[in-house]
Amino acid sequence: MVYFENVNKIKYEGSASKNPFAFKYYNPEEMINGKTMEEILRYSVAYWHTFTADGSDPFGAGTAIRSWDRFQGLDLAKARVEAAFELFEKLNVPFFAFHDVDIAPEGSTLKETNENLDRIIGMIQDYMKTSKTKLLWNTANMFTNPRYTHGAATSPNADVFAYSAAKVKKGLEVAKELGAENYVFWGGREGYETLLNTDMKLEQDNLARFFHMAVDYAEEIGLDVPFLIEPKPKEPTKHQYDFDVATGLAFLQKYDLTDKFKFNIEANHATLAGHTFEHELRTARINGMLGSVDANQGDTLLGWDTDEFPTDLYTNTLAMYEILKNGGLGSGGLNFDAKVRRGSFEPEDLFHAHIAGMDAFAVGLKVANKLIEDKVLDQFIEERYSSYSSGIGLDIVEGRTNFRELEAYALQLNEIKTQSGRTERLKAIINQYLLETLVSVKA
Amino acid sequence: MVYFENVNKIKYEGSASKNPFAFKYYNPEEMINGKTMEEILRYSVAYWHTFTADGSDPFGAGTAIRSWDRFQGLDLAKARVEAAFELFEKLNVPFFAFHDVDIAPEGSTLKETNENLDRIIGMIQDYMKTSKTKLLWNTANMFTNPRYTHGAATSPNADVFAYSAAKVKKGLEVAKELGAENYVFWGGREGYETLLNTDMKLEQDNLARFFHMAVDYAEEIGLDVPFLIEPKPKEPTKHQYDFDVATGLAFLQKYDLTDKFKFNIEANHATLAGHTFEHELRTARINGMLGSVDANQGDTLLGWDTDEFPTDLYTNTLAMYEILKNGGLGSGGLNFDAKVRRGSFEPEDLFHAHIAGMDAFAVGLKVANKLIEDKVLDQFIEERYSSYSSGIGLDIVEGRTNFRELEAYALQLNEIKTQSGRTERLKAIINQYLLETLVSVKA
Amino acid sequence: MVYFENVNKIKYEGSASKNPFAFKYYNPEEMINGKTMEEILRYSVAYWHTFTADGSDPFGAGTAIRSWDRFQGLDLAKARVEAAFELFEKLNVPFFAFHDVDIAPEGSTLKETNENLDRIIGMIQDYMKTSKTKLLWNTANMFTNPRYTHGAATSPNADVFAYSAAKVKKGLEVAKELGAENYVFWGGREGYETLLNTDMKLEQDNLARFFHMAVDYAEEIGLDVPFLIEPKPKEPTKHQYDFDVATGLAFLQKYDLTDKFKFNIEANHATLAGHTFEHELRTARINGMLGSVDANQGDTLLGWDTDEFPTDLYTNTLAMYEILKNGGLGSGGLNFDAKVRRGSFEPEDLFHAHIAGMDAFAVGLKVANKLIEDKVLDQFIEERYSSYSSGIGLDIVEGRTNFRELEAYALQLNEIKTQSGRTERLKAIINQYLLETLVSVKA
Amino acid sequence: MVYFENVNKIKYEGSASKNPFAFKYYNPEEMINGKTMEEILRYSVAYWHTFTADGSDPFGAGTAIRSWDRFQGLDLAKARVEAAFELFEKLNVPFFAFHDVDIAPEGSTLKETNENLDRIIGMIQDYMKTSKTKLLWNTANMFTNPRYTHGAATSPNADVFAYSAAKVKKGLEVAKELGAENYVFWGGREGYETLLNTDMKLEQDNLARFFHMAVDYAEEIGLDVPFLIEPKPKEPTKHQYDFDVATGLAFLQKYDLTDKFKFNIEANHATLAGHTFEHELRTARINGMLGSVDANQGDTLLGWDTDEFPTDLYTNTLAMYEILKNGGLGSGGLNFDAKVRRGSFEPEDLFHAHIAGMDAFAVGLKVANKLIEDKVLDQFIEERYSSYSSGIGLDIVEGRTNFRELEAYALQLNEIKTQSGRTERLKAIINQYLLETLVSVKA
Repeated sequence: MVYFENVNKIKYEGSASKNPFAFKYYNPEEMINGKTMEEILRYSVAYWHTFTADGSDPFGAGTAIRSWDRFQGLDLAKARVEAAFELFEKLNVPFFAFHDVDIAPEGSTLKETNENLDRIIGMIQDYMKTSKTKLLWNTANMFTNPRYTHGAATSPNADVFAYSAAKVKKGLEVAKELGAENYVFWGGREGYETLLNTDMKLEQDNLARFFHMAVDYAEEIGLDVPFLIEPKPKEPTKHQYDFDVATGLAFLQKYDLTDKFKFNIEANHATLAGHTFEHELRTARINGMLGSVDANQGDTLLGWDTDEFPTDLYTNTLAMYEILKNGGLGSGGLNFDAKVRRGSFEPEDLFHAHIAGMDAFAVGLKVANKLIEDKVLDQFIEERYSSYSSGIGLDIVEGRTNFRELEAYALQLNEIKTQSGRTERLKAIINQYLLETLVSVKA
Repeated sequence: MVYFENVNKIKYEGSASKNPFAFKYYNPEEMINGKTMEEILRYSVAYWHTFTADGSDPFGAGTAIRSWDRFQGLDLAKARVEAAFELFEKLNVPFFAFHDVDIAPEGSTLKETNENLDRIIGMIQDYMKTSKTKLLWNTANMFTNPRYTHGAATSPNADVFAYSAAKVKKGLEVAKELGAENYVFWGGREGYETLLNTDMKLEQDNLARFFHMAVDYAEEIGLDVPFLIEPKPKEPTKHQYDFDVATGLAFLQKYDLTDKFKFNIEANHATLAGHTFEHELRTARINGMLGSVDANQGDTLLGWDTDEFPTDLYTNTLAMYEILKNGGLGSGGLNFDAKVRRGSFEPEDLFHAHIAGMDAFAVGLKVANKLIEDKVLDQFIEERYSSYSSGIGLDIVEGRTNFRELEAYALQLNEIKTQSGRTERLKAIINQYLLETLVSVKA
Repeated sequence: MVYFENVNKIKYEGSASKNPFAFKYYNPEEMINGKTMEEILRYSVAYWHTFTADGSDPFGAGTAIRSWDRFQGLDLAKARVEAAFELFEKLNVPFFAFHDVDIAPEGSTLKETNENLDRIIGMIQDYMKTSKTKLLWNTANMFTNPRYTHGAATSPNADVFAYSAAKVKKGLEVAKELGAENYVFWGGREGYETLLNTDMKLEQDNLARFFHMAVDYAEEIGLDVPFLIEPKPKEPTKHQYDFDVATGLAFLQKYDLTDKFKFNIEANHATLAGHTFEHELRTARINGMLGSVDANQGDTLLGWDTDEFPTDLYTNTLAMYEILKNGGLGSGGLNFDAKVRRGSFEPEDLFHAHIAGMDAFAVGLKVANKLIEDKVLDQFIEERYSSYSSGIGLDIVEGRTNFRELEAYALQLNEIKTQSGRTERLKAIINQYLLETLVSVKA
Repeated sequence: MVYFENVNKIKYEGSASKNPFAFKYYNPEEMINGKTMEEILRYSVAYWHTFTADGSDPFGAGTAIRSWDRFQGLDLAKARVEAAFELFEKLNVPFFAFHDVDIAPEGSTLKETNENLDRIIGMIQDYMKTSKTKLLWNTANMFTNPRYTHGAATSPNADVFAYSAAKVKKGLEVAKELGAENYVFWGGREGYETLLNTDMKLEQDNLARFFHMAVDYAEEIGLDVPFLIEPKPKEPTKHQYDFDVATGLAFLQKYDLTDKFKFNIEANHATLAGHTFEHELRTARINGMLGSVDANQGDTLLGWDTDEFPTDLYTNTLAMYEILKNGGLGSGGLNFDAKVRRGSFEPEDLFHAHIAGMDAFAVGLKVANKLIEDKVLDQFIEERYSSYSSGIGLDIVEGRTNFRELEAYALQLNEIKTQSGRTERLKAIINQYLLETLVSVKA
């Protein structure tokens, strides 16, 4: 069955690649520093937004026109798998990602749910034999079902904790079966609505206990992939415990979990926490904790997770800058945790949107790479901090001094000269690289 | 010389205490659970807002009418000390707090600056001999002078690092001389304006080096008081490294500094970081890191630090709830890091404002204490989490189980029943306690 | 059939009234300035939140336990009517409000939809014969169905405009049949997602054309009640045309619609637009446009419409202050456009929540009334602006002067003395009235 | 005297113009649709940020290194004029703008202030005889001096109203003398801090009275230029009356002032009000009220007016789109109401920053122009709204129908088909135009 018939017609003028679709700037085979763009960018399609979501919002019903919606139950689940691998192939993406409930319907018991899951997993395994598309990560949805209303691993109800454990146990097994390259935790209900009814310490202790058991079980079954925490500050829960990367890091350090965990960082979650995307990436990077990326964008004039496709070239450039400086994403990838707007309800919008995001991150990659090649920022920074390379600065960095010596040094200083940070000039340079990199690359 | 002449006339109907001023609800001598209100609340006046600030804002000149403004230089500094102890006495506050530059003018050299400081310190010591008012904490202002434009301990310029070290060295000595009960660090310029020119890792490493040297020096001179980090997310710097308590905790853990440091938590900084005040207090409390409090309030419809006097009875009640649950503030206090509005420029507004804040926190104390006495929230929470006191829940908490066992348990569960969180009812109860505690206390 | 069995047990200590339920402070029969509290407050239950909503959010399924959910289709609609009038009676509320789709299911055609509606309207009419509860307002839901994705009266598709006209036509007829005291317009989809695809001028012109036709039709059928626009800045649409009261006023003035329209002002929408609730009420009041109120509250640390029950006593007091100064709400009322939290899913939470809101607004009424009686703010304001009561000030107000004369006057002025705005003192007084009004009223 | 010595060395690779400075993309003489870029963009330098400001912020002293700072009083004022015209010439900008207090120091009396002003005005007139740079607009600063603490035209003190009248009277005279092309009002203190002490109606009535007197006096002296209101929502005042364009429009309509007034729209003020810059421009444009532009940008993760130089190419493109669709700015211009960051304190940063902004708006112009030439958006919009060009849609637009007819039409409709809004595709097209316009223009 073909689910996306008209999309072969989507062809924009001046495509960058041999791909059947109309990428303008993304060419999976193009080499950048000895790797293909595909290998660096590791694009992934988010199953939930693309095959399960219907365009509903808190004030409106679903709008999405999806040809698989004529089916129901397990048939619907199967049709979605077919549609998914059709789209993966047409977009030529190397990865996808899912929550358990995205791919198979929940049954009336946990056993039945697991059986449904197994059936679809089998079907996906068959597809994966011939498809190039691999599983970037899977996760257990522990936020939709009412049982998780007050949390999963942080629920006040021990039965919910146990049920959640069973879900993640299954998730880890699925990860192993499908060769997932990471396993993700997003704690949308792990937090609190009001402190008036919350034992925050017990809840966080329990979350740590849960993670330790997950680590143990992964070891037991020989699943050796990074565990990724996905920070988000608020929504759906008034306050979530994994507020941002730094908060997650505090938690992992306190509970001795830094070895096994890294972060899956989402652009829109960054801005909801009051940070830029690049701030979150940098924080993870300099702590050795950058695992994977949920590639989307938010709207800073709106106060919720809009999960838009990432078309902002500035943000994508600065994100790719951090990723390249990190030596790439390792087993992580750029997962489009992004949804078409409710008003973009036609099937071809799924293609327009993914192409928009893939092209925009490809531009980001090229511009970031050129900035690094030309050492534009590195050189400025090296000079800016050069006082720490010798003399008193080097003493400081190498731990050879103390307050007494520093005071003696300071007392003999004349007026201290500092240098301009040159923010405006650096921003102009970013503009110049944005406008001219593609030209120079083409030339 | 008398600086506040008319304020003796400020007397509101129905004062709660024998205090010459018109407190309605604050009675320093009133006993709450075996301690006086004064001992629990440990109010402190912020020298900078009350004696140094002039009511200027980025769009307007100073407006404050302060009779000491007829002086200049060291004479001005001395007049401020006189005015300060006059106000301390009239308000009967047990503590005050200052930055070095609040109390003495900077000289043209570090040496001269220290000499100015010493002169005023001597004068303050004299006053303290006969005054009840003690020093809650002091700190070094490392954000106003242009040398700190790009940071102090995180400056790209090693000379600035050295200069900052000299300042904190002196600050620690002053703390010792004046018997300060804490020493505070607020890193208003420790952060970055743009990542384009910033080596975030080096800057944070340097900050940790700085703190370790401070710890060493305090030990050397026998200053054994808590060091307090004051988190704030942004302003003046686009992004400050001590974003919030959790971020500060991640930093302190990473650099092995948790033993010596706690947090000085400010209400307005909490909301700028996207948290409630009580969230920050709770986070510090359950990590054993609640040091002291900057008692003020912000305006969540404005995006900057408004530093208003804390009159919101809800916030004050929930803050006092955390503080009482913490067993009090130890050597910390409630420091009014709050300024009168630019339009409240008359000297008596300083009294109206402090009285407003002191009364409002006194109410908060009484209501919080009654909530705890009546076990209103405790009982609800105890029951809510009761499933962790026995059976599978207790196994979880005591680390006696794992994913296999939990799955087996979950597989035999029927539909899991959770209970309502009762948020609305709990909020109504808070209203009831707010409206009725004073009545019942009076009766 | 009884839908709320256990709620008769809800009885809090110290109830204020003879009402079977446990109000602490709301006593419908209590007289305030010659009117009963019931007559002043005109409480209304929102049908959608209380009888139709299920507690779902963008990340989770419905949680609400509602005994009428065992029914489907029209039977469900009927059961809801029964449950509604049971709750109205038990809470003793004088009003309710609904959208057309709240009370009856949409059919497969407009005709069928109208027939469904008629059937339920008939049933409601029967109930209203014996119930004290009247219809505060009704409205047409023109945001949920996918046809309204790009707007209703502002849709790019003329068929949608026509369909919307038919819906409002029916709505006006329903208002007449049920004796609604107002008719409401909320334009949740009247706005734009991106200007890239939007003809904003045509859309606003069409909205005005739509309103004029509505006015004409109401006149034709003899429906003489206020039309109310409900401002909201964003959500669900990225930018809605009725951003706030001032924006709505600009629109109504431009299109000559001020005579027939007033505003229905919602607290949570006010804060989403960056205003306090009292700001929006004041803006409407001084322009003679305060129609009705959606009584709820938001969470200023969250960026979406949380529609919480209004328990904040400060906000409720300042809101009631504006309402009393307006001479009451006329045909408007306080409609609880508020929903229980997703975690408050038990039936009795509906009662706890309404009681919390009704009690909290009753307190607001009493405190506001006392503030007005005692002329606390009026007297301060009168004195503050007294310079406009004589001399040059009176000349200004009465239009008897000009820039030449004012310059001449200014040239001979010495330094201008202004007075403190006394914000802190005024806030302390509000606290005092909050804490002591109920005591003094009781005494 | 030469104030900017080194800047002649600022030359970036690949300059676009013959201009001595290093523009990459701005070429004043380049023709776009029959006009030069200079004629379309009408760049203006803001006197206050560039010649008066010192880089101070609420937490720090001034940092700016400005060679004219060695002077004082009127000598300083004169040096600034010299420096200004040097910079105007070096940057080759056609316009500048100022507040009265930017150019001359306030005296101890109004008379002395006016005399100071006259002296500098005379000097500026001399410079203007030989300079190409003209005055875009001037304004009276009625927010810095303490007398305006509670407002100028909205002050509770009639003397302040009179004083303000004298200031604007002088401002209008200056506008006439210097041939200003507009006169601007920014009401930074026209608003309120708290409604508890505010008579909002009287204040707004007085503001309208003030504006009417200003209109009368301009007519009297034959000053026939647009009056421009500059909306801003908050800061410095908690709530300013000119919140945004729509709010300003409501005010102007109510008080019958729409004929004489237009808006001066600032990007950063737009985002502080919760709008995009292009929203504010569009709102003004479709109401015939787009007067001039304060070209800067904010930081949506910060909550105050950062007044950054406008380097964001997306925003500048969408702004230029609105401006071109408006048929240009008429007598308005693009005034760089922008300041270098506190850390960009060297004199050459002033050049880097202006060049960054001028280049970025030049790119915006070219891209916007190409979008319009290619009818990319126009064509999409035309088709999207085509249902209003015939049949029932045309009847609606031409006022030939009513609710009865529309209902009859709706009753016979089958399911209404709407079309995708194609947001993601349109954003990808904007990216493509951004990346490729300069290439195609160059080719």
